[in-house]
Amino acid sequence: MSVCIRIQPDILNIPISERERIITACHGRERLADLASGNPDMAMPDFVVEQLRACMESGYARYTDYYGLPELRAKLSQQLKGEWRITADPETEIVITSGVQEGLYVVMRAVLHSGDQVLIPSPHYGNYYQNAIACGAKPVLVPLDEKEGFVPDLDRLEKAVTSRTRALVFCNPSNPLGVVWPREILDGLATLAIRHNLIVLVDEIYHDFVYSVQPITSIATLPGMAERTFTFGGFSKSHLMMGLRIGFVVGPSEPMIAVKNLHYCITLCPSSVAQVAALAALDCPKEQLELVFHEFRQRVEMLHRGVATIDGVSCVKPEGGFYLFPNMSRFGLSSIDLAVQLIERAGVITLPGTEFGPYGEGYLRLSVCATREQLEEGLARLAEFADNWA
Amino acid sequence: MSVCIRIQPDILNIPISERERIITACHGRERLADLASGNPDMAMPDFVVEQLRACMESGYARYTDYYGLPELRAKLSQQLKGEWRITADPETEIVITSGVQEGLYVVMRAVLHSGDQVLIPSPHYGNYYQNAIACGAKPVLVPLDEKEGFVPDLDRLEKAVTSRTRALVFCNPSNPLGVVWPREILDGLATLAIRHNLIVLVDEIYHDFVYSVQPITSIATLPGMAERTFTFGGFSKSHLMMGLRIGFVVGPSEPMIAVKNLHYCITLCPSSVAQVAALAALDCPKEQLELVFHEFRQRVEMLHRGVATIDGVSCVKPEGGFYLFPNMSRFGLSSIDLAVQLIERAGVITLPGTEFGPYGEGYLRLSVCATREQLEEGLARLAEFADNWA
Repeated sequence: MSVCIRIQPDILNIPISERERIITACHGRERLADLASGNPDMAMPDFVVEQLRACMESGYARYTDYYGLPELRAKLSQQLKGEWRITADPETEIVITSGVQEGLYVVMRAVLHSGDQVLIPSPHYGNYYQNAIACGAKPVLVPLDEKEGFVPDLDRLEKAVTSRTRALVFCNPSNPLGVVWPREILDGLATLAIRHNLIVLVDEIYHDFVYSVQPITSIATLPGMAERTFTFGGFSKSHLMMGLRIGFVVGPSEPMIAVKNLHYCITLCPSSVAQVAALAALDCPKEQLELVFHEFRQRVEMLHRGVATIDGVSCVKPEGGFYLFPNMSRFGLSSIDLAVQLIERAGVITLPGTEFGPYGEGYLRLSVCATREQLEEGLARLAEFADNWA
Repeated sequence: MSVCIRIQPDILNIPISERERIITACHGRERLADLASGNPDMAMPDFVVEQLRACMESGYARYTDYYGLPELRAKLSQQLKGEWRITADPETEIVITSGVQEGLYVVMRAVLHSGDQVLIPSPHYGNYYQNAIACGAKPVLVPLDEKEGFVPDLDRLEKAVTSRTRALVFCNPSNPLGVVWPREILDGLATLAIRHNLIVLVDEIYHDFVYSVQPITSIATLPGMAERTFTFGGFSKSHLMMGLRIGFVVGPSEPMIAVKNLHYCITLCPSSVAQVAALAALDCPKEQLELVFHEFRQRVEMLHRGVATIDGVSCVKPEGGFYLFPNMSRFGLSSIDLAVQLIERAGVITLPGTEFGPYGEGYLRLSVCATREQLEEGLARLAEFADNWA
C-alpha cells in the first residue's frame, strides 16, 4: 500500500502567497533598494538590550507561566489602562503570545466555527484571510476605496453582513494601507458589531506609530465592545523586537479560557528571554522610544512626499505604521508584473498590492523599514522608472 | 442582544489538567522538595550562553526565514544524518518550530481529519491527547503495562486499530515513564504502521538522554517509515534551552508543505535569538554536553535506587529522560489524593500519574529537574511518609 498522507481540507486550502515570483526576480541581483521589507533595519532600544544582556548573565532559560510571567501581565495591564484606555484583568483577560501572529490564530481557531463568515475590510494583512481559511471559515472581503481614504464605508460593510457573519477583523493603524481609522468610524463599526452580534478582532501592532494629531481609539474601549473584542498588540514594531516573537491578546475572560487552553497546546509558554525583553520594553525610557517614533515618522513623510510627486501616481497620506499604498495603475500592468519589472529594470523591491488581497490590484505596498539611504535611492529609481515609462 | 461568544466545539473539548489541585496544595507552604518540575535547575552550556551574549551585542532581533534560518536547517540536517541516522532535506523536510509543542500541533492539525482515531500508548504526555481533541480527532489510549516494562504489547495495539485509525503518537525516551523502547519493538510498530497505513508521530525531545547501552533507534530510519513519520526534537532538554522555545520537525516533503503553511500562519517565524542559541547548540563542545548528560544520569539513578527501596513501591528502571514512574498503589489512594497528601503531610511535590491519562492511576511521576539537595530531601521525605503510613 502506498503512503498517502491526506491533508486536512481547511489546512490544504490555506492560500500561498505569490511572493515567490518576487524572490525569484531578486535572485542574483545586487544593490537592490528594498522598499518591501517589514523588517526594520534598526536595533532594539539600548534599555531593552541592556536588560537582555543582564538576563544572559545567568544562563538560565526556563519555562515560565503558560500565559506569560505574572509581573509582565500586571505591568502590561497598567500600560493598557494608561495608554490604550483598555481595562484588562491580568489573570483572566490577558495572554502573552509568541507575537500577534500566534494570538490571531488561537483566537480565530477558538471562536470561529466551520462555515462562519468573517468580514475583512481589504486590502488587508494576509494572515487574517489565511487564518479564517485554516479554521474552516469563509473570509468575506469588503473593499476599502482609495477615494474614501481607505476608511470603511459602513453601508457597504453592513450590506456584506449575513446570518452567518460572525466576526470582523481589521488592523488599525493599517498594514498595508498606512491609514488610521478615526473615532467616528470606530463608533460606526462598534454599532454594526453590536447590532449583528459580531466578534471584533483588532490588530493594533502599530498602535505606537500614529503620526496624525488625534490619539488612536481602541475599539475595545467603546461602550458594549469589551465583551466582544479581542485586541492584539506586541513589541515587534514599537521596540524593534520582531525576531523575539512576543505579543499579547486581550479579550473577555470567559472565551479567553478556551484561548488559553489552545495557546497552551501550541506554545506551552512564551519565550522567557522574550518576556524579559517585553518587561524591559514596558519600562523603557520614553526618549529612547521617541527616537524610533520620529525616525519612522520622518521616513514615512519623506517617502510619501517623493511618491506623491511621481506623475500619474496617487497615494493616500499615511497617518500611522510603516507603509504606503500608492496607486500605480497608470503603468497599465498587474501589480505583480509591475513589481517584477521594478526589480528587473529599476532595481527596486516593492510588494504587489495583491499580496493584500484582490482589491490591492493596481497598487504597490512600499515600506520604510530599510535604511534612509536605501529609501532615497529606491525613491529616485522609482521616479526614474516612471519618467522613462511615458 | 447579549454577547455570546460560542467556542468552537473541538477547542471547547480540550481537557484541562487537574494540576490546579497540586498548585493549590502548594500554596503558602515553604521549603517543599520539588519532584514534579519539568524545568531543570541547570543553566545553558557556557558555549551557548557566549553565543547568545555575542548576539545581544548587535541589539538586532529581526524576522528570519519562516521555516528557520537556512544555516540552522543545514546544520541540523547534518546532525540528524550523523547522530540520528535520519536523512532530511533541509529545504523541504525540516521546519524549525517554537518548541516541540508547536511542531506537534501543526502536524496534527495538518494531517488529522475530524473523526480520525489516534493511537496513544499510555500513560502519555498530555499534549498528544489534547491536540487530538483540538483537531476534532479521537484519541484512543492503549495501555502500557508496568509488568511489561511499559513497552507496548503489539497485539494489544493491533486490536485497537479500526478503519478510522489514522495515526500513532508516542514519546521515546518516554515522558512520563522514563523507558526507552528497543529496536525490536520499533520494528514491530513500523510493521503495524505500514500494514494499516498509519502516520507515525514520534516525540524524541529526550533523544540525547539515553542511559542504557544500546543507542536509540529513530523509527523514521526503519524501512518504509520515512514517508509516514514525523520526528520531533528540540534543544530544550539537551541544552537547557526550555525557555527559548526552539525545536524542529522532520517529515516527508509533500505533507510538509501544508505543515509549513500552518506554521507560518501561527508563528510567522521562529525566534531569531532562539535560533542563534540552536546554532550554538549544534556546535557546542561535547564535554559541555556530557556534564549535563552525566548529571541527569546520576540523578535518575540516585532517585531510582532510593524509590526502589521504599517498601511496597515498585518502579521500572529508567533508561532515558528525566522521569520515574513508580507504582504507589500500596497507599490505597488515588494518585491525585496521594500527591496532595504528599505535599501537605510530607512536603514533597510530585505529579499524579493521572496527569498522563487514566492508566496512570496508582502511579506518581517523579522528576529529577530540581537540585540534588532537593532530590535527596524529597526522597528522604517520601521514605519517611511511607514508613509512617504502615
